[in-house]
Amino acid sequence: MHCLQGENQLAWKAIGIFDSGVGGLTVLKEIIKTLPQEDTIYLGDTARVPYGSKSPETVTRYSRQITSFLVQRDIKMLVVACNTASAVSLAALKKEFPIPIVGVIEPGARRAASVTRSGKVGVIGTAGTIKSSAYAKAIKRINPEIEVVTRACPLFVPLAEEGWVDNEVARLTAQAYLQGVKEEGVDTLVLGCTHYPILKGIIAEVMGGGVTLVDSAEETAFTVAEILRGKALLRPSSEKGNHHFFVTDVPAGFIRVGNRFLGGRLGDVYQVSLDEEGKEEEPAGEEI
Amino acid sequence: MHCLQGENQLAWKAIGIFDSGVGGLTVLKEIIKTLPQEDTIYLGDTARVPYGSKSPETVTRYSRQITSFLVQRDIKMLVVACNTASAVSLAALKKEFPIPIVGVIEPGARRAASVTRSGKVGVIGTAGTIKSSAYAKAIKRINPEIEVVTRACPLFVPLAEEGWVDNEVARLTAQAYLQGVKEEGVDTLVLGCTHYPILKGIIAEVMGGGVTLVDSAEETAFTVAEILRGKALLRPSSEKGNHHFFVTDVPAGFIRVGNRFLGGRLGDVYQVSLDEEGKEEEPAGEEI
Repeated sequence: MHCLQGENQLAWKAIGIFDSGVGGLTVLKEIIKTLPQEDTIYLGDTARVPYGSKSPETVTRYSRQITSFLVQRDIKMLVVACNTASAVSLAALKKEFPIPIVGVIEPGARRAASVTRSGKVGVIGTAGTIKSSAYAKAIKRINPEIEVVTRACPLFVPLAEEGWVDNEVARLTAQAYLQGVKEEGVDTLVLGCTHYPILKGIIAEVMGGGVTLVDSAEETAFTVAEILRGKALLRPSSEKGNHHFFVTDVPAGFIRVGNRFLGGRLGDVYQVSLDEEGKEEEPAGEEI
Repeated sequence: MHCLQGENQLAWKAIGIFDSGVGGLTVLKEIIKTLPQEDTIYLGDTARVPYGSKSPETVTRYSRQITSFLVQRDIKMLVVACNTASAVSLAALKKEFPIPIVGVIEPGARRAASVTRSGKVGVIGTAGTIKSSAYAKAIKRINPEIEVVTRACPLFVPLAEEGWVDNEVARLTAQAYLQGVKEEGVDTLVLGCTHYPILKGIIAEVMGGGVTLVDSAEETAFTVAEILRGKALLRPSSEKGNHHFFVTDVPAGFIRVGNRFLGGRLGDVYQVSLDEEGKEEEPAGEEI
């Protein structure tokens, strides 16, 4: 460990990131791009994915377990990369854990509010995210004048996972979900789920040229950088971060998709079992 | 409790049934129809659904936890109503728990083998079920001459849950999955997932009139009756069974769909948390 003059030792700790599965890697990718000097620890809850169709109580219980697990690994801040968990669990986590915690809703809302010209913003996401109204509330907090139109799109995640991203089924599904949002005349659409950027092509096609698609990943990475800078918790930019990955189901599927997401940069992936206290059990390590 | 002459006291215990979620209620419904005198305890693992996309290791861990939970409630036999759990975990459960255990694969395979005339049987199911080859092996054990064509249909469960069972998206999805199976010339198609009967209409339309659709529920209920009769564990047919329900996520969604499945016959539904030992934690009861 280096020891630079006046430097905060806390700065050497890693950034913790979690998602219900593999989708949060899009957020990790942007964090690595913005802050290549930082270590990261990512947890994908692949044994209990998806979160979007489950109750706020259950999602919050899982989020607590994961945060305990990451905090025990001594992280300096937490990024909730899952939209559903950000929407329903962020307040509970902030109350319970004494580290900076950032979700993806607030950054996505900020970006949407700054992009819209017409003052009409669409938001799509899982059933859990849309039911929580978290995006609509966040956008209204920034600018109460903005009109927000929301729509849950439960089939988008399974379509993305099946790899059906530009066939007729994807097109008809996108039309069924988005036609109403389009007719409301939005000029900005928030992709409120980390899987949705995979369907960007078909979503853009259905929404038409005049609509800007917003995903939270990049803006979330900027927010992380800003917070760490404000607290003097950034590592020196001369460093190169290491990245560790944990999953709750066997790692094979995560490794396959993850390497595609991160362009082959995935490091070791370990399987863990989370109990009620978020403790690690039988860490069946698997390297790639 | 009654005490009839020469009667096995064990007979008064309940039948345990589990599924990853609500789909197994189709199996429960047939059991109630065949054995109205029997008590049942059903567990739907709604906090961790689905199983079909998860690893055999994880599905087996969950199945063990649930079986422990039900065995602690003193059941006389267990029905694994989930096709994926039947396909990947049945052998492990039979080894570990000293009660009769029945899955849905074996009965479905038996029905298909008795129905086919052409000797060509199709099987559709989740990724986990199809990858396990459990149906193909079971059918071949009954009749090695039968040719089995299999296809995983990952989008069928989310389509059924979205209620898109006879629109153009469902039709195109069914065509994409089933065209190849149809072209193989099967005359029998096993619906190897408890959700698929909901899509029966569109599946029948795509497969055409000459193909018999088989689901395991009815045959599984006959198997349960046969085993209990063989072991003198049937309750007197003059009795009327009680039915109890446990879920791992909040009960609201299960109650809504379950009442539709069972025609308003759903009893009390309790939420439980399963730890590694399958013990009950904080049983937040909710009556309906």
